[in-house]
Parts: sequence; C-alpha cells; structure tokens
Amino acid sequence: MTSPLPQRAEPSGRPPRIVVVGFGPVAARFVDEMLPAATAGAVEVTVVGDEEHAAYNRVLVADLGVGRTHLGLMGLADADQLAAENVRVLVGTRAVRLDRSRRLVHLASGETIPYDRVVLATGARAVVPNLTGLNPDPLHPVLPPGVTALRDTHDAARLAAAVEARGRIVVLGGGVLGLEAALAASEEGATVTVVHHGDRPLGRSIDGLGGATLAAVLRRRGIRVAGNARSTGLETGPDGSFRALLLEDGSAVDGDLLLLACGARPRTELAEGAGLAVGPGVLVDAGLGALHTEHVFAIGDCAQPGETAPSGLIGPGWRQAEWLAARFGHELLCAPAPAPLAAEGPSVILLKARGVNLATAGDVTADPLDAFALDHAVGEGGPAPLSVSVWSDPEHGAYVKMATRSGVLAGFVALGMPRAAAELTLLYESGAELPADRSVILRLDGPEATVGAGLPGIAAAAGPESTLCRCAGVSRGTVEQAVAGGCATTEEVSGATRAGTGCGGCRDDVRELIERHFAAVAA
Amino acid sequence: MTSPLPQRAEPSGRPPRIVVVGFGPVAARFVDEMLPAATAGAVEVTVVGDEEHAAYNRVLVADLGVGRTHLGLMGLADADQLAAENVRVLVGTRAVRLDRSRRLVHLASGETIPYDRVVLATGARAVVPNLTGLNPDPLHPVLPPGVTALRDTHDAARLAAAVEARGRIVVLGGGVLGLEAALAASEEGATVTVVHHGDRPLGRSIDGLGGATLAAVLRRRGIRVAGNARSTGLETGPDGSFRALLLEDGSAVDGDLLLLACGARPRTELAEGAGLAVGPGVLVDAGLGALHTEHVFAIGDCAQPGETAPSGLIGPGWRQAEWLAARFGHELLCAPAPAPLAAEGPSVILLKARGVNLATAGDVTADPLDAFALDHAVGEGGPAPLSVSVWSDPEHGAYVKMATRSGVLAGFVALGMPRAAAELTLLYESGAELPADRSVILRLDGPEATVGAGLPGIAAAAGPESTLCRCAGVSRGTVEQAVAGGCATTEEVSGATRAGTGCGGCRDDVRELIERHFAAVAA
Repeated sequence: MTSPLPQRAEPSGRPPRIVVVGFGPVAARFVDEMLPAATAGAVEVTVVGDEEHAAYNRVLVADLGVGRTHLGLMGLADADQLAAENVRVLVGTRAVRLDRSRRLVHLASGETIPYDRVVLATGARAVVPNLTGLNPDPLHPVLPPGVTALRDTHDAARLAAAVEARGRIVVLGGGVLGLEAALAASEEGATVTVVHHGDRPLGRSIDGLGGATLAAVLRRRGIRVAGNARSTGLETGPDGSFRALLLEDGSAVDGDLLLLACGARPRTELAEGAGLAVGPGVLVDAGLGALHTEHVFAIGDCAQPGETAPSGLIGPGWRQAEWLAARFGHELLCAPAPAPLAAEGPSVILLKARGVNLATAGDVTADPLDAFALDHAVGEGGPAPLSVSVWSDPEHGAYVKMATRSGVLAGFVALGMPRAAAELTLLYESGAELPADRSVILRLDGPEATVGAGLPGIAAAAGPESTLCRCAGVSRGTVEQAVAGGCATTEEVSGATRAGTGCGGCRDDVRELIERHFAAVAA
Repeated sequence: MTSPLPQRAEPSGRPPRIVVVGFGPVAARFVDEMLPAATAGAVEVTVVGDEEHAAYNRVLVADLGVGRTHLGLMGLADADQLAAENVRVLVGTRAVRLDRSRRLVHLASGETIPYDRVVLATGARAVVPNLTGLNPDPLHPVLPPGVTALRDTHDAARLAAAVEARGRIVVLGGGVLGLEAALAASEEGATVTVVHHGDRPLGRSIDGLGGATLAAVLRRRGIRVAGNARSTGLETGPDGSFRALLLEDGSAVDGDLLLLACGARPRTELAEGAGLAVGPGVLVDAGLGALHTEHVFAIGDCAQPGETAPSGLIGPGWRQAEWLAARFGHELLCAPAPAPLAAEGPSVILLKARGVNLATAGDVTADPLDAFALDHAVGEGGPAPLSVSVWSDPEHGAYVKMATRSGVLAGFVALGMPRAAAELTLLYESGAELPADRSVILRLDGPEATVGAGLPGIAAAAGPESTLCRCAGVSRGTVEQAVAGGCATTEEVSGATRAGTGCGGCRDDVRELIERHFAAVAA
C-alpha cells in the first residue's frame, strides 16, 4: 500500500538501523513518526522497553492506582501492530550497555543489537529520598513492602490495593504528582496525609497565600497536610513492611502505604556507562545529538538540551520525538529539513483533580503591596515595575494572583477558577496584555459567564489557532474540525487528533467543544 | 398667614419657652422643625451660639480651609430670617451656667434667659493631645501660633493661610478628618505629612492590608505618612510658634502648621456644672431627656443616648433633632406622638476625597485564611462561621474586603472602588445577602458597568426606597422626584430635599441622577 520512500543507504547498502532504548510515551511517538519509513523498509527500527507493556500514558498512573481507568485505555502503542508494520519490539528487556565503538546495544538477555543511530528515550525514575529504611541507590530500587513510587503499573497496583482496602496512605512530597494522587485516593476512600517540606505544598511554584489556600482546600477535602515536616526514616513492622513515617521532631505519621512523590531523576546510567556527558540529563545539542559523540541521540525525560534539567512534562518530549524523526527523515530519506527545534517556553504547572483546579507559572512571590512599594524604588531604565493583584476567597476555594510588567503576565496563580486559569495560561504563553481592570479575569468563572462570550478588555484569546492540548500541540481549530467531522467522544477526538492523550488536562475543553457542537446542531 | 396651632400652655398661661444652647447643624435642624410653632407664637424659641455665625455645615470646614468652598455656601441657618420668623437668635454669646432650680441659662454677657425646656446642642470640641507645648485643658483651648484644630471657621482660616503659602502641614492623627484634610491640602499645593499611632491610618476601623493599601495610596499622592509614631511635644520658634512635631524616637517632623486631628470630645461643661450625669456625653434617656432631672434635653454630638460615646456623625444628630421637635410638638402642641426614636444602626465610615474613596464598617479584622481555618473550630450551635474574601490591586489603588456570616455582611472595606463601596454600604445597612460569587461586587466598578444595570446575584439594592443621603435620611426616590420636578443642580436638590447638606458624600450620586435625568429627557 505504502509506496517506497527514497532512501540514503548506509555505506554497506542496507537500510539504516535505528534502535530506540526505552518504550515510554516519547519513544512511542518517535516510533510512530518513523512508521511509514519502517513499513516501507527504508529504515530498520527496533524499540527496547524494560517494562512488560508497550508504551502507555504514564500521566494516568495515579488514575490507574485509584481505579479510575484501566491499562487498556492508557495504551499509546500496540506491540503486535508495530511488529506487523515492520518494527521490532522488545519488551520486558533491559538495555545494560551501550558500546559506542562497535555501535551495539547490549541487552540483559545477552543479546546485542547493532545500530547506526541509537535514540535514548529511557525517561526518568522516581527519586528515593534518603531515609533510614530505604535504599536510595537508584540502581537498586527495591523498596520495602508498603512503600511505592508512582510511575509504573506495579506502583499503580500497590496504590490500588491500599485504596481498595480504604487504608491510610502517607504521601511524601507536596508536588503536583503527590497532590493529585492524594486527592484522588482520598476521594476514593483512603485516609491520606501529605507530608511536605516548607510552609506550603508546591513549594516555590506557588506563593505563600496561594499555597496556604491550597493547603486549606486540601484539608477541607479531608486530606491531612503536614507542612514544614522533615522526614528522617521509616518505622517498619516485624515483616519489614512500612508502618509509619518518622519525622525529625520526633513525631510519626502512621500509615499502610508510603507513596514517594519526591520528584523524578533522568535515567542516565546507560549513557554514563558509555562515557557520555550527563548533568543531570543526557546532554544533547540543538539537534538532540549527545555531546562529543556521533550516532547517539536522546529525547524526553532523559535528555537535557539546555542548561536546565528536563521538565518532566510530556509535551516537550513529544515535540522532541517529532522533530528528531523529521531530522532523520531529512538525513536518511531525503525529506525536507525541519525548522530548528523551538526552545520550550516557560511552562505552566497544572494541577487537575475533581473539584480542584490549579494553574501557576512564572514569578509569583511578590505580594501586591511589596510590588507597589517597589514601584518607587525602580530607577529609570530599569525593568518595568511589577504590579500584583490578588483575589482571595478561600471559602469558595478560590485564589488568583496576577503579577504583570507593563500589563503582561510575569507570573500567575489561579486556584479554584478553571476558566480564569485557562485564560491566564493563554495570556501567559502568548505574552498578551491583560485588561487594565484585572478583576475582569475573575468574572470568567462568574455565574453568567459563557464560553466564548466576549468580555471587555479580554482579547478572544481562545481562537481557532490557540493551543487546546498543550502536550500534543493540538489547536482548538483542529479539534473543532474533528468534532465537525463526526468525532463525538473525547476518545474519538484523541484518536483523530492526539488531543487529550497527554496529561488529560484539556479533556474538559474537548468535551465542551463536543457538547457545544451538538447543541448547535440540535438547535 | 400661618393659622394658630393648638397649644398646651404652661401653667402660667404664656407659651412655653424653649432655649437651645448651641447653634450648630443639629441645633439649626431642631429650630427649623420648631419654626411653624414659633412663627405661630405657640412656643418661644431662643437659640444661643458662641460662634459669630449662625449654623453652618461643619463637615465642610476642611473644604473651606483649602479654598474649595466659602462660608456663604455652607450656611444651614439664616439669623435674620429666623428672627423674622419669631426665633430669638443670640450669636457670639456663650452660655456659662445652667440654673436648673430657677430654670435659667446664664450667658457670658451677664444676661439670663428663663426656659421651660432647655435643649443642649453644644456639640463637641477637638481633642488637644497631651504634648509639651500644648495646654490640654479643654476649657482653655488657646493653641500656640501655627497650631490648629479643624472644627470652625477660625481653624479653616489658619489652614487656608498655610495652604495658600504652599507651606508644610503636619497632620496629627490618621482618622477620616485628618486624612481628608491631608488629601485636600496636598492637592491644593501644600506639603503634607500625616503622623499617626499604630501601623496604619484609620486604626481599628480598617484591617491591616486595607490600611497599608490606603497608606500606599496616600504616599503615591505625595503625602508623607509616618506610622507607629508617638509624638511627645512641639518645637517652637522664638515667637512661640510651631516649628516641628517631636517624636518619641527622637526624630522631628518640621512644618509651618500643626493640624490636630485627634478626634473630638462632647462639650459637656455646662451640663457638668449643673450636676447632670455625663460620661462622656450628656446622658439622656430614650426620650432624649437628661437623666435624673426634668426640662433638660440633649441632642447631637454632646448627647449620649446609649452606652457608646456619641458618633460624631451628623445623621444621628439630625434624626434626634427631628424626633425631639416631634416630641415637643406632641407634648406642647397636641401633635400626634412620634414613634420611638429608632436606635442607630451600625455606622459606615466614609472617606471621600478627590480620587480617593473609602468605605469601611463592622468587623474587618479577620483575614480570609484565618476565617477559613476557624470554620472548623466553630462548634454546633455557635455563631455562623465568618467567611472573608479580599481583592487587592494596589497599583489601581483598589482594595475590597467582604466579611460575611451566612452570606450577610459582618464588615467590609472598599477602597478605590466607589460603586462597590456604595453597594456594600447598602448591603451592610440592609442586612441583605451577598451574591454567592463575591467577585460580582467588584465588577460594579468595571469597565462596562452602568448605573442601575442589573448584575447577576445583586438585588436592585439601589431602588427608589433606598437611602441616598444618609445624613439627612433622604431616599433615592425623593431626589429623583425633585430632579423630575425641575431641580437641575445639586444645590437646588439640597434646597428642596436636604440631600447633600450633611457630609456631602452623596453629592456625586445626586449629580449622577441629575445627569441621567437630563440625558433621558434629551434623548
């Protein structure tokens, strides 16, 4: 069916061999992009994953752990289908060594796979904190019974057991992953305590009042929040299983399951073993090639293209996968050269849970009066003064902070106001100016606001070109076309456009577009 | 022309003699109400004032001091006119002794005036703080040159001289009077420093963040604000005139004029000399009669009908004047008995200046998160939990706090949002429920809000029955009728309805109704 693609053969004359190490969402996207060439026999693609499953949506592992989804709905790749399309898929197999001089990937099984180009997509692993009773060595991640991270299906199964038993879950870490898991598990019946450093959850990603409001909202939803808590170790039972998390002040938090949500670290041991530059991700150049070597590339959570550590977000990884496939297409298959990979803009942190919606980005530390007072201190020629507005209504779980310079957002927090959060996210990413009366933003979540209704001073930021799914980079217009073309469920839209296949944060928006379309059709 | 009123003569057979001591706005209103009876010869009314002028609107003294009005526009009574209508008017004459047994008022001139009923309307005087260089004895209120209070036309003249010279004015006291004077004087070209106790202006009448925002707004308008300042004394020049205010920390605030705005105290020396109960005002019963005596009454700033000190507001005094005249009409002239004098509701503090608008009332100390946290601490059967929302936007000089119990305002602050302030004042005084989404209040000052436009969740609180002028107790409907009847200026409306004759805070609303009426007529 597919016509043969033009191809630049390796000197040997055979098609170039591409080996992908890792089979998570980013690897799956890369393989997807290479599929036409692989099917046509223009390249040989092998993908090696150490989990027993083909790529699945890791962002949904917490949902899996509380029984809100199942693995069948999370799949991002089908091993049989790929094999039928000429991709060699090796799952449940770990790559243990990269031999750059001979261009071989050594597997734990003893097999070696030769490559012309190897793409490291090994992702990241959960950080195991330095606590008595835990082995922090990332290469020996055997946790005691009753302790789990939350990255793979095994972790999800451990969480599921605790939730089903309506057990007591101690979440260590106040980041987005920990809070989302805590909210979901609590809502599904578990007794949850979040233990975190600092005086507020989300740490420096949020300001003091916003964080305190978030903590209050969590408490109102039945979650215990232990802030300013430094954990020192585990108390275990006679069988070695977790019983309590011990804190520096001598107190302890009892529980049946300790869920480690202390962040993730790039999996770089293969790269390090091969002498590649790492810090903390595999260092790559603007073309995603590993530094000071050839034939080795890295994408996704294990790759570090700039000075900052990998974001851990799926969107940038997917954009890298797409771009690297385009580069290979150009170099190996005479496809046009892709435009340089765009640098990732500042990222917005989103927390989505049933009834709790939070978006935060940029510089949010300044308080309104501090910023106002500093106005006078800013000299001529200095940066534009920071102006900060705050809406605080904790009874309704609402908090909004908008920090602007010359009317453009330098940072924001939006809690409990989903439409304001969406609008501020768009304004932040586009750099567009806010209305002079900042309170206009609040009325997006007001009683009479309707989607798309024009508000004075708010540009129609949510036009067809605006990004709806930021993970997969899908515009609102593309989704609208898919819906007009017959997609009537979020799953169908995801299948047709990839929108909603990442963090899932845009699914409500997709659902809304579907409902609006069918309401208009019915009218 | 006026038909004789029925009358209950004193035992002697002559018309009852009513002597009013004091000739400020409250006395003037009382005399006004008695005028028909006096003109008809049914009562003999004498009014004694120690100023050289008949009653004028004391609230406008600051405006007089900065040259924004003149005495001719401030008059509330016309001595010649009153004399023509059978009222004996004695101005520039002080009552020095009240002889209750002989029912005589002794004047400083040596004259004695017999009475059947005496009405004390002696008002209040400025508090002279205890500072080296000032004589705090209220009965010897001779201040050094360069020091003034702000209660009468002499004070206004002293302020006017300093403003005209674009001098440096030190305002001692962070209350409404001091701040309004500071704002007006600063705008008219004086260099103004406000020195106040505590960490914010308005003290306990406002919350910390609101007060800090107010201070920031004052500073942005060029006023220096010295908070947490305890003044100890005056530095004077060789001629004994004010040069600087000395502070406890050893510093000093230089200036050409020291304006004392440290509050007022009821003038009770006449009552005290006559052995009446005082504390701090002349204690009166529900009928405004002095306690434990007969024939003596007190109204306005010198009278204390309840447990709390007189408010210093003009509205309650005017309502007392009106009610006491009605009582006398009933007892002396067979008029129907008035309904009992209604207790004054909680009062709203208003600060109105060009470009600065503030309203605050009730319990405003709780912060959103404190209130939220206390929610859980409130037991069953206790008071409804307090819910607090805040909007803080100091760059635009805006701050709103709404503290509610079961949706009804327990207190509020509204700074820099005049329409929200007006709406919250109405909601506070009526006890009506706020919209569930409190941010709806903010949009009253938004870019597209129009007067009278319906907002979701906001009842049409500003209906015809709602109070427009709270000092004189004039409804919106009454003003609308006056405008429809031909009144085309605020002065004409004031003449016809008394609206706007008190603090003047409603004049913008009157102007708006006039403009709306003529716009509608023109359309």
